[in-house]
Amino acid sequence: MNTLCIVGLGMIGGSLAGALKQANFPGKIVALVRSEATGVRGLELGLIDAFSVNAADVICDADVVMLAVPMLSMREQMQLIKEHLKPAAIVTDAGSVKAPFIKDARDVFGDLSRVVPGHPIAGREKTGVDAADASLYQNRRVLLTPLPETDAAATATVQQLWELVGAEVEVLGPEQHDRVLAATSHLPHVLAFALVDTLATQQEAEEIFRYAAGGFRDFTRIASSDAIMWRDVCLTNREAILESMDNLDAHLKQLRHAIDISDGEAIEATFVRARKARDANT
Amino acid sequence: MNTLCIVGLGMIGGSLAGALKQANFPGKIVALVRSEATGVRGLELGLIDAFSVNAADVICDADVVMLAVPMLSMREQMQLIKEHLKPAAIVTDAGSVKAPFIKDARDVFGDLSRVVPGHPIAGREKTGVDAADASLYQNRRVLLTPLPETDAAATATVQQLWELVGAEVEVLGPEQHDRVLAATSHLPHVLAFALVDTLATQQEAEEIFRYAAGGFRDFTRIASSDAIMWRDVCLTNREAILESMDNLDAHLKQLRHAIDISDGEAIEATFVRARKARDANT
Repeated sequence: MNTLCIVGLGMIGGSLAGALKQANFPGKIVALVRSEATGVRGLELGLIDAFSVNAADVICDADVVMLAVPMLSMREQMQLIKEHLKPAAIVTDAGSVKAPFIKDARDVFGDLSRVVPGHPIAGREKTGVDAADASLYQNRRVLLTPLPETDAAATATVQQLWELVGAEVEVLGPEQHDRVLAATSHLPHVLAFALVDTLATQQEAEEIFRYAAGGFRDFTRIASSDAIMWRDVCLTNREAILESMDNLDAHLKQLRHAIDISDGEAIEATFVRARKARDANT
Repeated sequence: MNTLCIVGLGMIGGSLAGALKQANFPGKIVALVRSEATGVRGLELGLIDAFSVNAADVICDADVVMLAVPMLSMREQMQLIKEHLKPAAIVTDAGSVKAPFIKDARDVFGDLSRVVPGHPIAGREKTGVDAADASLYQNRRVLLTPLPETDAAATATVQQLWELVGAEVEVLGPEQHDRVLAATSHLPHVLAFALVDTLATQQEAEEIFRYAAGGFRDFTRIASSDAIMWRDVCLTNREAILESMDNLDAHLKQLRHAIDISDGEAIEATFVRARKARDANT
């Protein structure tokens, strides 16, 4: 690979660029950005070699294009880059939901043989190019969800890219990805946002935040995540998230009932089960 | 103060003992424990100077007695120590819920002039004397909820004890304490337990935990907390916790509806509000 073009130089794209630089990536790293200021900052931080706000300038030489934008911006970016792509260029992404990315790619590109859907399971609550962290993907999982028609060589190239920055790549189906991530990532984010919003709009909000302990800070850290990115996740992984919310709701109702009737045994059983599951799995 | 007796040498009591030792507490630290093994371990770890499984042995010399047991064990411990207390002994505690502690103390002791209800806003997920951490209370808040009849001198003594281990002491009313902590601590714990239990009993539980990222680990850390302690919190702060659960439920219902009808604006508004509140307050 000679040239990687990252589309969207936010925390996710910027971290990949910085990590590749640190790993002595032998190719050129360019960025397609929405604002001049982001590109300038990317240069200043040594993340990229060049940038442009015009797809024509940076896409035509790219061997791999990495779409690192919120889910609902994917399609627009695909449309912008489409006519400038080299025939052999690989298109991959870092989006949190895979089925809608694939649908967008199919609608825009038609041929998916050079499209490798991907998702790094890593993030920071801070946003923007200044939040780029070259160590972000170290020892983190990256999930690729190639399609039956995806070239094995294209998948291998994307896998090597992520492995170069210290990630561990795994392959699974897009539907399974979206279902599993709804439970493990999207639901916790929705919950954290909802909890903080509930407390913030409550009477005594000031005291509530004042007397919050470390556990609360850990629990709500992800409520500082990017609102647009997570809005898009909710809109694009809607069904799986609703199902996850309903599963949790059923458990919360049971637990609420146990608390309401002071059923200590049932409360304890739930807590013991949860504690065992967490300790066994993390 | 010459002698402090800690009743219950778990993570909370053990951490206080260790922190006092580290701060060169000039008095003697003794422990009333349920099991011989805990006391022996407390001696080995250098947390305490002596222990007994019999209240008669360790309570009679104590100037301050610190009850550091789960909420539903408080009353039993009060009954055990009552007849052995020196007339001037101060009784305080580290329980998470204050109104029921006060009720127990009133029922058992009658006179509350030497009772100083307290609650350190600090904890670890690990339990038992081996989880004692001498730095646990450093820069943490301790909330005292003295009653109108509590001697100011007794409150001052307990305050000094906590300040010696680096904590910042604040005074508030027991009802306000229980309401605020329900929102800020008890609800998040209930949620974390419920979430992990939901995921653990779901199809694909293995994949769910396998693909869980750092955000999930942070979010669910408190689900590794002590099941008995938190069961007791749920049973003793029942009403405030139910109210907090209902507040959250109302917000979650709204958010679920917004996701269901793909109302991006409403989702985004919630997330932006939450993010701002968290960033402003932590």
